[in-house]
Amino acid sequence: MAHVLGQNQYGKAENRIVRVLRDGTRHSIKDLNVSVALQGEFADVHLTGSNANCLPTDTTKNTVFAFAKQYGIESAEAFGILLARHFVTATERGVVHSARIRIEEYAWNRIEVPDGSTGSSDTGEAGHSFVRDGGEVRTTEVVFDGERVQVVSGLQDLVVMNTTDSEFWGFIKDGYTTLPEAYDRILATQVTARWRYSYSGADGQDQPDWDRSYRQVRRHLLEAFAETYSYSLQQTLHAMGTRVLDNRAEVDEVRLELPNKHHFLVDLEPFGLTNDNEVYYAADRMYGLIEGTVHRDGVTPAIPVR
Amino acid sequence: MAHVLGQNQYGKAENRIVRVLRDGTRHSIKDLNVSVALQGEFADVHLTGSNANCLPTDTTKNTVFAFAKQYGIESAEAFGILLARHFVTATERGVVHSARIRIEEYAWNRIEVPDGSTGSSDTGEAGHSFVRDGGEVRTTEVVFDGERVQVVSGLQDLVVMNTTDSEFWGFIKDGYTTLPEAYDRILATQVTARWRYSYSGADGQDQPDWDRSYRQVRRHLLEAFAETYSYSLQQTLHAMGTRVLDNRAEVDEVRLELPNKHHFLVDLEPFGLTNDNEVYYAADRMYGLIEGTVHRDGVTPAIPVR
Amino acid sequence: MAHVLGQNQYGKAENRIVRVLRDGTRHSIKDLNVSVALQGEFADVHLTGSNANCLPTDTTKNTVFAFAKQYGIESAEAFGILLARHFVTATERGVVHSARIRIEEYAWNRIEVPDGSTGSSDTGEAGHSFVRDGGEVRTTEVVFDGERVQVVSGLQDLVVMNTTDSEFWGFIKDGYTTLPEAYDRILATQVTARWRYSYSGADGQDQPDWDRSYRQVRRHLLEAFAETYSYSLQQTLHAMGTRVLDNRAEVDEVRLELPNKHHFLVDLEPFGLTNDNEVYYAADRMYGLIEGTVHRDGVTPAIPVR
Amino acid sequence: MAHVLGQNQYGKAENRIVRVLRDGTRHSIKDLNVSVALQGEFADVHLTGSNANCLPTDTTKNTVFAFAKQYGIESAEAFGILLARHFVTATERGVVHSARIRIEEYAWNRIEVPDGSTGSSDTGEAGHSFVRDGGEVRTTEVVFDGERVQVVSGLQDLVVMNTTDSEFWGFIKDGYTTLPEAYDRILATQVTARWRYSYSGADGQDQPDWDRSYRQVRRHLLEAFAETYSYSLQQTLHAMGTRVLDNRAEVDEVRLELPNKHHFLVDLEPFGLTNDNEVYYAADRMYGLIEGTVHRDGVTPAIPVR
Repeated sequence: MAHVLGQNQYGKAENRIVRVLRDGTRHSIKDLNVSVALQGEFADVHLTGSNANCLPTDTTKNTVFAFAKQYGIESAEAFGILLARHFVTATERGVVHSARIRIEEYAWNRIEVPDGSTGSSDTGEAGHSFVRDGGEVRTTEVVFDGERVQVVSGLQDLVVMNTTDSEFWGFIKDGYTTLPEAYDRILATQVTARWRYSYSGADGQDQPDWDRSYRQVRRHLLEAFAETYSYSLQQTLHAMGTRVLDNRAEVDEVRLELPNKHHFLVDLEPFGLTNDNEVYYAADRMYGLIEGTVHRDGVTPAIPVR
Repeated sequence: MAHVLGQNQYGKAENRIVRVLRDGTRHSIKDLNVSVALQGEFADVHLTGSNANCLPTDTTKNTVFAFAKQYGIESAEAFGILLARHFVTATERGVVHSARIRIEEYAWNRIEVPDGSTGSSDTGEAGHSFVRDGGEVRTTEVVFDGERVQVVSGLQDLVVMNTTDSEFWGFIKDGYTTLPEAYDRILATQVTARWRYSYSGADGQDQPDWDRSYRQVRRHLLEAFAETYSYSLQQTLHAMGTRVLDNRAEVDEVRLELPNKHHFLVDLEPFGLTNDNEVYYAADRMYGLIEGTVHRDGVTPAIPVR
Repeated sequence: MAHVLGQNQYGKAENRIVRVLRDGTRHSIKDLNVSVALQGEFADVHLTGSNANCLPTDTTKNTVFAFAKQYGIESAEAFGILLARHFVTATERGVVHSARIRIEEYAWNRIEVPDGSTGSSDTGEAGHSFVRDGGEVRTTEVVFDGERVQVVSGLQDLVVMNTTDSEFWGFIKDGYTTLPEAYDRILATQVTARWRYSYSGADGQDQPDWDRSYRQVRRHLLEAFAETYSYSLQQTLHAMGTRVLDNRAEVDEVRLELPNKHHFLVDLEPFGLTNDNEVYYAADRMYGLIEGTVHRDGVTPAIPVR
Repeated sequence: MAHVLGQNQYGKAENRIVRVLRDGTRHSIKDLNVSVALQGEFADVHLTGSNANCLPTDTTKNTVFAFAKQYGIESAEAFGILLARHFVTATERGVVHSARIRIEEYAWNRIEVPDGSTGSSDTGEAGHSFVRDGGEVRTTEVVFDGERVQVVSGLQDLVVMNTTDSEFWGFIKDGYTTLPEAYDRILATQVTARWRYSYSGADGQDQPDWDRSYRQVRRHLLEAFAETYSYSLQQTLHAMGTRVLDNRAEVDEVRLELPNKHHFLVDLEPFGLTNDNEVYYAADRMYGLIEGTVHRDGVTPAIPVR
């Protein structure tokens, strides 16, 4: 009995590339993790053992490294667009119909050194010495299907906390409800955000300033988190997504995944102590998980639910 | 400017529950990690700060633990169906339209002890002492939308290796290709599989024997991996998916994610040694990643691409 | 002001080696993670920038892979002894005074297939198809200092649980004590064990049967865990260590690290349910951590506290 | 046959505590992971099942949280000293002879917001909104044995890279050496550092300014890494340790563990490209691992090798 081969894709995942740009003694670096996934005419590869249509995953890896040299890495998004377009347009006989490039970017800062020390600039920064910024990871996913480019950028592991201005009450009580209402609690979460650009790669359309856009989206997410007096993490989520759309015209859709990193007030009464919202236990699991999309009116949301 | 609240869901994730069933001195255990996600009429929660429609994530957690007592845990799938139906049908004013229950199950084996030792049975097994089986994790995802149940079960972290009967050649060569053709290589992968049952929870429809079905699907995946002389990991993937559909009538669709865990032959020539496919270096990253769906003719595939 | 260079060591860590032994169509595999650390006359390397005494870490890696071909891998312990002796005795000018080889070994089982299928034997096992045993990791640490060999083997990630036969009461109560006494609780832990062999590598001394010894120590740890009616995890720890010493003459010392993987009884009273030791919440952190050594009378314990 | 109970210790590990200090609307936080280990007269607990001498791990946890309220958390070191002294001196009948407190501290920064926004100060910082600094983790280990306090502080996960000023040549060549000499390479490592203070807690001895000392040690580690023209990672390690001792009189001993995070130059010749130290592949495993201690003349090094 024959069955149907459905959606399939393949490529080399997690190509860890570091690109050094040398401007005299002042270097700069890009540190990326690049994953390639190709869709196309690959039925024979699955069904007959013929690899005549198979561009090896090893070749996709080589292409990533070679492109870093040939074209540089201006930004993760621009690099992803170059790669996605290449695999679709340059692979022989048009067997690749669509390419998806996922990139994680790790940020580095210059090490501060005294003026005059080895490799220092007059700004007190080392010219070729870096310390990794352990904060959030910047992400992007570029898809090119032969006609349109779609860019969904994001960040993950951005951990934030408000120590007050958060309440949670007035909720449904059913037979399984024991949660007391809270009028002043810690609100903490580890932000995973993805936002989709309206940019489609049409002829003559300029690419956004991806780096500036990233910095601004990040700033608005943080500000909205800090400034929202919250009655639920859902409300904070909505405020964060809305803030981005209000301020960044190049973004059409924002999706947020916000685990509620619970901080439980420790009961110190048995020890004759009053815990006036001062001492908390940071729990690992279970955790609430709040997810949602906010998008512009009239656009079709396209960031997948995970 | 108003924006649109799109897809959103919430619930308590990763409820780690251990259920002990006591049959005299012979106990048995279920060890699950249960995540709840609810969709419904939650716009106000996001927009107005009113939680009148919000069933707290804490309540969803309580429900998981209480149901384990009230109904027991016959299998992850049956337990997920109970929970999903409950949240949709029992939450007040019908505000929950759809519930998704994801479960990871960790297997345990009985510790073998000499006959006659404390708590032993006459089979040489301890009655209430267990050692965790560190192998693959069993998974299920149950969705109930008020009308239909959908069950997608699976496994992850099942690591397999063929030390021969794998070739890879005849592929596309472009300007970035350096990979030599291989006529005898190691093929190793860490299987993530998801399969969708035709079961829809209609009135009068019996549930499959979930545990038996799991064991049989796992067996067929392993056998197909072992028995396929492979010209590509894609071909092996297809053989594995097809084997399941050929043998398990209750399954309509199989999706596999197979990272190619590369084992590189170490060059021992510099040391005057011949490496006749004996000594390999097991690489971490980069890795090929092969993903694909096989489904029955006539059904609409529904397992999402990740 | 001059400072003193104290203890120092270096080498290549985590060499991931897979060794295939081909006996016709029946293969067997060893899957190891080998880390090398060398001590010796390396002051100049640190102080002057001269590498004249430095055997590159890359060379230590090459040696691991070449030795796997030249000598095979009979067991992790035997392989470690070969390597440790080599680095000390063969490195030029005797600059290496001591070598420490740490090995993790991952177990694999043969995939079961029907008789007559590709690559099967008449035992219903595939000849060259394997599935990784996800259970505990076997470990060993071999040190050779030019005179004596010391072998400390062990295991980690062996997770065990008793669902009854565990109590905890009669403890100290001070002003910070709130724990109720427990007369029937779950006792679960993730065993990390290390045991030191009396074997010293003296001339004419035979090596123990390392594989058999490993299997037997593991068995006695499990049996002692299962058979001990426990009043504290400390008591169980002591019983496990003692059991090994009682049964394995080749072992002089056992050290155990036992995190108390807490399983808290869930309060189901608010839902009108009685939880008669049936439904537990498996916590991540905090956890009790119990560590201890048991050794033979007259020997000097040497396994370090971590 | 009786065996000997050797070194043993126990306590509650990984108590995740967040302490909020509220100065009006301006809050500050301490985020710690505190592990307690006690040694003492615990033979009966292991041997007889009597817990008369056992202070429950749960009580040690309660003490951590209660002390956070009673005494605040001025620094991880000061908090650890308070706790270690308490367990030894306050536990009944003097059964605790020695206490070890290990602490990890996670840093948080204030979220920057526009002046005038909710909860902002006139410095453009939110008063009670924080974003976690994902960089290195600060560590400390305090031991009190009834007489002396020993404090070993440190950091981990500080990832640094020099893109030039690193060579490696002139090393031993034996029959297993294939590494080419390098005259310009990337040097990258993930610093784990521990340093021991001379402070012993004697009567009348002032505690160092722990926070300032931490910041300064970190600064000197970074500067020494950046400023050292390196002929080996060993040489860089020595320079880093020496720099700390030269500049921080309160520190007697420094131990560093430096994995050599290899960045391999990608061969782009097959694609007609010259790779002039621009495009690197960041490898995971294997990695060189360089460890060493530098201490003041006349002191006995005490930081254990791991």
